[in-house]
Amino acid sequence: MYKSSFDIDLVCNHFNSSDSIMSFVTIDDINPKVLKCEYAVRGEIVSLAQRLQQDLQENPGSHSFDEILYCNIGNPQFLNQRPITFFREVLALCDHPAILNKSETQGLFSADAIRRASEILDQIPGRATGAYSHSQGIKGLRDTIAAGIEARDNFPADPNDIFLTDGASPGVHMMMQLLLSSENNGILCPIPQYPLYSASITLHGGTLVPYYLDEATGWGLEMSELKKQLEDAKSKGITVKALVVINPGNPTGQVLSEDNQRDIVDFCKSEGLVLLADEVYQGNVYAAEKKFHSIKKVVRSMGYGETDISVVSFQSVSKGYHGECGKRGGYMEVTGFCPEIREQIYKLASVNLCANISGQILASLVMYPPKPGDESYESYNAEKEEILSSLARRAKTLEDGFNSLEGITCNKAEGAMYLFPQLHLPQKAIDAAQAAKSAPDLFYARRLLDATGVVVVPGSGFRQVPGTWHFRCTILPPEDKIPAVVNRLTEFHKAFMEEFRD
Amino acid sequence: MYKSSFDIDLVCNHFNSSDSIMSFVTIDDINPKVLKCEYAVRGEIVSLAQRLQQDLQENPGSHSFDEILYCNIGNPQFLNQRPITFFREVLALCDHPAILNKSETQGLFSADAIRRASEILDQIPGRATGAYSHSQGIKGLRDTIAAGIEARDNFPADPNDIFLTDGASPGVHMMMQLLLSSENNGILCPIPQYPLYSASITLHGGTLVPYYLDEATGWGLEMSELKKQLEDAKSKGITVKALVVINPGNPTGQVLSEDNQRDIVDFCKSEGLVLLADEVYQGNVYAAEKKFHSIKKVVRSMGYGETDISVVSFQSVSKGYHGECGKRGGYMEVTGFCPEIREQIYKLASVNLCANISGQILASLVMYPPKPGDESYESYNAEKEEILSSLARRAKTLEDGFNSLEGITCNKAEGAMYLFPQLHLPQKAIDAAQAAKSAPDLFYARRLLDATGVVVVPGSGFRQVPGTWHFRCTILPPEDKIPAVVNRLTEFHKAFMEEFRD
Repeated sequence: MYKSSFDIDLVCNHFNSSDSIMSFVTIDDINPKVLKCEYAVRGEIVSLAQRLQQDLQENPGSHSFDEILYCNIGNPQFLNQRPITFFREVLALCDHPAILNKSETQGLFSADAIRRASEILDQIPGRATGAYSHSQGIKGLRDTIAAGIEARDNFPADPNDIFLTDGASPGVHMMMQLLLSSENNGILCPIPQYPLYSASITLHGGTLVPYYLDEATGWGLEMSELKKQLEDAKSKGITVKALVVINPGNPTGQVLSEDNQRDIVDFCKSEGLVLLADEVYQGNVYAAEKKFHSIKKVVRSMGYGETDISVVSFQSVSKGYHGECGKRGGYMEVTGFCPEIREQIYKLASVNLCANISGQILASLVMYPPKPGDESYESYNAEKEEILSSLARRAKTLEDGFNSLEGITCNKAEGAMYLFPQLHLPQKAIDAAQAAKSAPDLFYARRLLDATGVVVVPGSGFRQVPGTWHFRCTILPPEDKIPAVVNRLTEFHKAFMEEFRD
Repeated sequence: MYKSSFDIDLVCNHFNSSDSIMSFVTIDDINPKVLKCEYAVRGEIVSLAQRLQQDLQENPGSHSFDEILYCNIGNPQFLNQRPITFFREVLALCDHPAILNKSETQGLFSADAIRRASEILDQIPGRATGAYSHSQGIKGLRDTIAAGIEARDNFPADPNDIFLTDGASPGVHMMMQLLLSSENNGILCPIPQYPLYSASITLHGGTLVPYYLDEATGWGLEMSELKKQLEDAKSKGITVKALVVINPGNPTGQVLSEDNQRDIVDFCKSEGLVLLADEVYQGNVYAAEKKFHSIKKVVRSMGYGETDISVVSFQSVSKGYHGECGKRGGYMEVTGFCPEIREQIYKLASVNLCANISGQILASLVMYPPKPGDESYESYNAEKEEILSSLARRAKTLEDGFNSLEGITCNKAEGAMYLFPQLHLPQKAIDAAQAAKSAPDLFYARRLLDATGVVVVPGSGFRQVPGTWHFRCTILPPEDKIPAVVNRLTEFHKAFMEEFRD
């Protein structure tokens, strides 16, 4: 993503050459933590894809494919997924409440969307959707979200524990900022991981302590591995502050069992680790035999209360069946911290003023959607089920496609939006990558893109067991494009294996 | 805002007492930079105001006032300011494009709002307002914003220099993160300052290097003061990376002259400082003899180009006549950095994915509002002028009210949304504050709130010349409440002065 500091100095000095005094800011003036940070999801491959896309527009027919097939990022509406009508009706009415009581509005919006928008406006002081809210978010919306969590978990949720955020990412950053003050502070993260974690830990100056998911058991989370890595970190003088769990997994797609979650909870409790639960894919479970259980529900079902363990759960409007990435809505539910630490979290939220109000409203809709009997329920539910069943079919088709190929093995996507197939590459391909000064999976992904227009993210961006190579492929292209993804990839892969056969 | 670490340990240990192993996270585990950070705008006085408000609701008549008058925060719509109709029409249509072509929509929305929403949707890949955008924001919206900047400044603006952000604050944080890596890195900030700067510098581990605005000359910015403070910082081993200018001033309300800005530009250029220009109040100028000039316009008018000086200008949808704080829209225009540093800024933007799309759209509307001839122009302009002229009247009434009081002097609010009167307190009041372990201005603000329900922010939260005491009072209460603010404050102040007369 960035060049060596030698290259950079050359370019910056050239840029600066018109100035006789060496006054201009150079790369050496930049925070080294920023330089060190990597964020592969928007890295080199994406830039190349954007160039190819422009090329196709300007010179149609210049490549062997006629469109770019984006399988690199969890951005459903970018790939033609339609938003849920009820959600957008409510958002539009809250944006422009002046039309709420006009007769034409009855013809344009469903009755329960009008009712829901009115209720939401009543919950906002002065009905002002253009005002900063309470730093944690609008109280009435937090009440609704807490009610949604209670309905999901069958355990109480407290609106005062909810912090509304602009998507899940700012919540993660806030917790890293709270917990990390030096390289001697560690965070246990699954490997492979969503690169937000490695980026945020690097930016906040801490150390990522990896625990490897076991690919052979469907990306299983082994307690022995957690213990080993924690001891290893301790022996290096690292104080581990927290453990990140991503469930359903990103990029790995597994759904944790309740038993496994109980073990994790006990481990965090006995080791005094904050449990950071990334649960943004809670609405995306495709395996019939699997069910999402929130970590907080598991904690409470074990009889643990507010003073037993610190748990932060992250949720987002960007994922699920709704996929409202552009709205930047989400929340974190913060439990098990003493009041003085809570006050520090509140202060950090306050420095950022508040999350955007449309995102706040959408988070409340996602956690408390139309119910059976509501006017919009049937159409809402049909939209939802159509999206989720299609995602399940797409996941299966891609998984089967990958597994039919020589030198690719791929676990099932039980949930989330991704497959993370392993590439078993011939030595010649690895040598060729090395000769090209590239990681083998980056080499593969670049060649794949060049040859087919299919965009995937190399596994290196998520980290992986050293010596293994993967890529992340979303299940999000429109269903009618999935065969093209499989066909193009199959054709490319066969030719690639032929080219580099040992 | 937080207690001493002694108090905190006591409470946290109590919280932890049910657990025999000392495993629970305590305040000692928290990043000391977070503990050190202060953010007065949402501090103690606001918490007290919220308690009083609840009290008034639950026990009407329990206080000598019947409502809280919020003069503490720049949040216009919280204080009944109505949003600009055209802006909200466009936002609603972009939220729910399904109604764009329906006949009822013609009756509910203005024709140019429908046209503008269609144009905006055409600029968004796949018309997907629910998708993550380019990390810098939607290209078409950046084109519009650049056109708006060009029209404002009469100098070119490049859409590739625009980074859309969730309000101005995340942009400021991003630049602090980029520039600060240790306590030996300094940022020159005006004192008094908006506490975002002190908070962000503390959180990112840098040092705030103060330069004092001269209250006697209407909060003038003296070059000799800048030079002195820079030399002083250097002598302490601090490398100053950037200079913050807030124009129009917050909390001080002054509007910088072009001459003054030229001096600042030359100072930054010769010292190699990045110029961070907080220009979020560019739409709020009330003094007839004053005009807002953007720093970038001044830089270009001096003949300086891209390789001469690094300038970042911050703009927000939260301020101006529109006051859309809850929408969290804004941008920074980043000029004069070498490509490799630009890449780092892009990477930081990417880690946060993108700004919320509604806020992005609103930023484009603010920078390119209806033009004469457009169907909505007259009503739009009438709404705008009504708000701005009312704000000017409110500022004058409050200023006159303050200046009529013994022991208060108040500079004119030439712009922004605040007055920052100085309190010349009797020694007895200062002694009483000390006895109450409180800064004198906090003591005054607390007493004012208790006695009258008027909420202001003590000057200490913004920093001030040591030994002087101020408070910040917004000009935002509805115009018909302004006399009540003045009357209550006058009555309180006279009694306070009598009570503590030396």
